[in-house]
Amino acid sequence: MLPLFKQRKTIGWVCLWVLLGLHFCVCNVSLGDASPTFSSNCAQGMIIKDMSFKVGQTLTIVGVAKPDATNFAVNIGPDEQDITMHINPRFNAHGDENAVVCNSYEGGNWCEEVREGGFPFQQGEEFKIVIEFTPAEFVVTLSDGSTIHFANRIGAEKYSVISFEGEARVQSVEIK
Amino acid sequence: MLPLFKQRKTIGWVCLWVLLGLHFCVCNVSLGDASPTFSSNCAQGMIIKDMSFKVGQTLTIVGVAKPDATNFAVNIGPDEQDITMHINPRFNAHGDENAVVCNSYEGGNWCEEVREGGFPFQQGEEFKIVIEFTPAEFVVTLSDGSTIHFANRIGAEKYSVISFEGEARVQSVEIK
Repeated sequence: MLPLFKQRKTIGWVCLWVLLGLHFCVCNVSLGDASPTFSSNCAQGMIIKDMSFKVGQTLTIVGVAKPDATNFAVNIGPDEQDITMHINPRFNAHGDENAVVCNSYEGGNWCEEVREGGFPFQQGEEFKIVIEFTPAEFVVTLSDGSTIHFANRIGAEKYSVISFEGEARVQSVEIK
Repeated sequence: MLPLFKQRKTIGWVCLWVLLGLHFCVCNVSLGDASPTFSSNCAQGMIIKDMSFKVGQTLTIVGVAKPDATNFAVNIGPDEQDITMHINPRFNAHGDENAVVCNSYEGGNWCEEVREGGFPFQQGEEFKIVIEFTPAEFVVTLSDGSTIHFANRIGAEKYSVISFEGEARVQSVEIK
């Protein structure tokens, strides 16, 4: 058996490592590190918390894709873990060229991908994405007039986290 | 001296309380609890992180004051602790009636208040606040055309946290 002093010291070190472990754990969970789309790390992109987006409302996002953008994404979710709608325009990423891939991320897993709509995005150019939240689904309208229909898979009537990833600069976010 | 078992238990409890204390501490610091304007708690309002607002750009905020609003605020800062510009329209709060109070919050303290501009805000009505970030200062233009000049006290050329408090619903945020 260790002397009392050493035992105390050992318990102190264990506490320190538990603290560090907890911190690391929380950080990873909140960023949904398992995403196949982005190699997320603690430096996530822009995030808006507590801006509620409800059934009947329309969310409009205007931004500019970076000149060398491979892809970017808009995520709508109930919290920082889950995503009820991930809209991912891909210029050239994950085997896709000029396609918008939508999906949801629930309980640590990506679900079924949806590929619809045109591809009116251009590297270095402004884009506009309009997302209508109907009682049945999300209807995304792109600037060429094409649409994407995506079920409200998580099923809530209100979402409060909107986040952005990848190579684009968001200029405005509007909910009306 | 206590028996070894009791000592271990005591150290365990101390660790638990240190953990709880740390959590409480972090929560308070990040919300700027010392604010004389709001009785902040862990349920802060809408926050945008990593939306950079740079010298030469203009930030436009549109929202609706709640019908029973006493006051609300827009905060621009380098992080979640400090605020380089706090814009606080007060319908009836902290001894003010129909006044916009601006201030900065640095290192845990509120600085000198600035009271300028008109008061075009109405409870239950839409408002628009335009904030121009010039090399010298922030110039805030209200919807009656009146302006507020406020020095860039923290002195950075870029801020990345925009947060909101009080009784208003933000409809859109634009940086151009």
